[in-house]
Amino acid sequence: MKEQSTVTPRTLPGFMELHPTEQVLFNQMKEKIQKSYERFGFLPLDTPVLELSEVLLAKAGGETEKQIYRFTKGNTDLAMRFDLTVPLAKFVAQNYGNLQFPFRRYQIGKVYRGEKPQKGRFREFYQADIDIIGDGELSLLNDAEIPSVIYTTFKELNLGDFTIHINNRKILNGFFESLNLAEISTDVLRVIDKIEKIGEENVRNELRELGVTVEAIDKIIAFISIDGNDSEKISKLESLEIVNPVFADGLFELKEVVKNIKLFGVPEDNFMIDLTIARGLDYYTGTVYETFLNDYKQIGSVCSGGRYDNLAGYYTDKALPGVGISIGLTRLFYQLNELKSINADKESISEVLVISMSEDISACISVATAFRKEGINTEIYMLNKKTKAKFKYADRLKIPYVAIIGEEEQRNGTVSLKNLATGEQNTVTVEEAVQLLKR
Amino acid sequence: MKEQSTVTPRTLPGFMELHPTEQVLFNQMKEKIQKSYERFGFLPLDTPVLELSEVLLAKAGGETEKQIYRFTKGNTDLAMRFDLTVPLAKFVAQNYGNLQFPFRRYQIGKVYRGEKPQKGRFREFYQADIDIIGDGELSLLNDAEIPSVIYTTFKELNLGDFTIHINNRKILNGFFESLNLAEISTDVLRVIDKIEKIGEENVRNELRELGVTVEAIDKIIAFISIDGNDSEKISKLESLEIVNPVFADGLFELKEVVKNIKLFGVPEDNFMIDLTIARGLDYYTGTVYETFLNDYKQIGSVCSGGRYDNLAGYYTDKALPGVGISIGLTRLFYQLNELKSINADKESISEVLVISMSEDISACISVATAFRKEGINTEIYMLNKKTKAKFKYADRLKIPYVAIIGEEEQRNGTVSLKNLATGEQNTVTVEEAVQLLKR
Repeated sequence: MKEQSTVTPRTLPGFMELHPTEQVLFNQMKEKIQKSYERFGFLPLDTPVLELSEVLLAKAGGETEKQIYRFTKGNTDLAMRFDLTVPLAKFVAQNYGNLQFPFRRYQIGKVYRGEKPQKGRFREFYQADIDIIGDGELSLLNDAEIPSVIYTTFKELNLGDFTIHINNRKILNGFFESLNLAEISTDVLRVIDKIEKIGEENVRNELRELGVTVEAIDKIIAFISIDGNDSEKISKLESLEIVNPVFADGLFELKEVVKNIKLFGVPEDNFMIDLTIARGLDYYTGTVYETFLNDYKQIGSVCSGGRYDNLAGYYTDKALPGVGISIGLTRLFYQLNELKSINADKESISEVLVISMSEDISACISVATAFRKEGINTEIYMLNKKTKAKFKYADRLKIPYVAIIGEEEQRNGTVSLKNLATGEQNTVTVEEAVQLLKR
Repeated sequence: MKEQSTVTPRTLPGFMELHPTEQVLFNQMKEKIQKSYERFGFLPLDTPVLELSEVLLAKAGGETEKQIYRFTKGNTDLAMRFDLTVPLAKFVAQNYGNLQFPFRRYQIGKVYRGEKPQKGRFREFYQADIDIIGDGELSLLNDAEIPSVIYTTFKELNLGDFTIHINNRKILNGFFESLNLAEISTDVLRVIDKIEKIGEENVRNELRELGVTVEAIDKIIAFISIDGNDSEKISKLESLEIVNPVFADGLFELKEVVKNIKLFGVPEDNFMIDLTIARGLDYYTGTVYETFLNDYKQIGSVCSGGRYDNLAGYYTDKALPGVGISIGLTRLFYQLNELKSINADKESISEVLVISMSEDISACISVATAFRKEGINTEIYMLNKKTKAKFKYADRLKIPYVAIIGEEEQRNGTVSLKNLATGEQNTVTVEEAVQLLKR
């Protein structure tokens, strides 16, 4: 009895659903990130996708709130998480008495934002976050450890050279404060961010229109012109002679962090002071990070984060300073995949496909069972098709080896192991095949 | 400036949110299942949590539909997935031309059902599924391979002895057909399922009230009395002399499957024919499986599944027979955890906590960096607290080793490695510590 097919199977726009051969690559990236986070002792957390709207949106507002997947079921007002930070804040506030501080947690999971769908933008996407939360205080050494996590992670991901850009929000905040420009800092930033497009003279003119004094404009131009290596940048910041406690704090912290990053084994080539980053993010209050792949600068920062004064002010009176980073994994995978630049260790799940040259596949089953017992991912081709179809199956799934069992192999207890990349084929014992496959 | 805390942080009832020390154990179970599924060449799939309601609910109805988390955003009618089978059906129908058959996929992910919350019942829970989907046909050998996946998975999970119960839906269906009882089979089953409670005589009486003939009742009683080992059960089924093609098919399939399971290396102690299982599930059409942990029979089947004729009749006219199983991971974890019966390989993420006996922790950072380079999950205790507090931190997080660096160690380039379980402490070089920790 055939049912009538009435519904067209389709996936929502903005929701990534990979073909398994791509999912294999995605999962390898995800697992490498997880392993690297665990290398640094971060503990796993797996908060629900659904939360009470009251809890999840305690702090939200504006653009964020519009994007939320929010609905009621029965009398309960529910929302799907839009990041992993708010659930962390909830968790830490809720379980404060039952956690060891500094609390180091990672979470890798899907979050939901109903953005306008466009190429490379997703409504369901993975974030891979780490955060270190202190109870009342948190040593600046943690700010220096974070880049070593980024370094280890991106080395593992094998995406070519990368540079971790480091700044401290207090430097810019204190700088504007010292010039009495704190209140119009957003406007000033908007103007100076145009300098490459419109040139210094036009920037000076527009700043004057905002009411900035000539003396202050000179300092702003001097500030944004700061270049050189890290110690040159620090010297130049010092030579600005800004008298402001916030600026002084920021400069001190930046120097400390940069000094200690080296202790954590990050090569100097892989990080740099960048006074231009993270200007827009109000959330961060101290150290900030952005990470760029040098071969793919066009895709922007692939790992960003920073230090914040207080994780969970909306849930608790406890002061919970923290520092953390996030990798937008879905977007990163999508972009690298478009560029054909996923560097995976393996392209398939199965290491070997066992095929029979006769109708009887019982010998195949025994060999496959022996392989599996040795930890080798193994598949048996069970359909009674032509040999060509069997090899095509292996080829399509990118399985690197085929173990062929014909009458002779069955008689001698051997297998003919063929490397599909090189075409090399050897008739060996099952034990020898195991050794070859394990290499 | 302190924000006022206005919202009580809390998690929705029926949503599991584990403490990280428990999440470590949960993740190990999840990863073991994943590895075991991959051992058999199943490919990963990661479908969205959200789908169009029209697509997701194409086949649903009744109880299921009431439990769905369904809502509109803009003009779109959305639903959260309530299992991983419907998304698989959608995916296979949608990508039919682009898949290799038999299509072997696993998916481990959260699903959502707004059930009445009660102890051990969850509204968000992990399922860990595998399915093998054929294009038009699917060899019965696949039905025999599935128990070897179950066997490997539960051996890895290390939860003690377990038994895979196997049956074939066609046996019972054909049996009732042969007695002309197909139309009242549900009522008949309801009565015979009470036999242990009410006794044979009362069952006979109730069956007579349903209009079943004495001759048929004798056959029913003979059928449900079948016991013995697998070959005895098969002999007794044969001696019933049922003349019905469906029954004959079912018996043939069951014999074939049981014979081939041994070929796949599953010990006879770990599986058995059980003619009583999966009576209620209409979805399955042939082989059915349930798995019981012999030490925890009270928690019911921990891994169930079976063969179905057609995966995706609502989405496509293609015939897609399949066979699969599912592990309800969240429920399983919850129950084992309640019984204090999680057998994890390790209880912590970090293998070692590096602590300093002085205020200067730069030597700790170098040692930790060396450990991490060798793949050892390592944490540095950065707070300047008393030694006791540092050990307490390791103890609470169940970190097995503490690497102590005092002035002497710093001078000699050594570490004192303490095993917290045995209390044993050795002062060794960093390289020796690496070797000790790797063991």
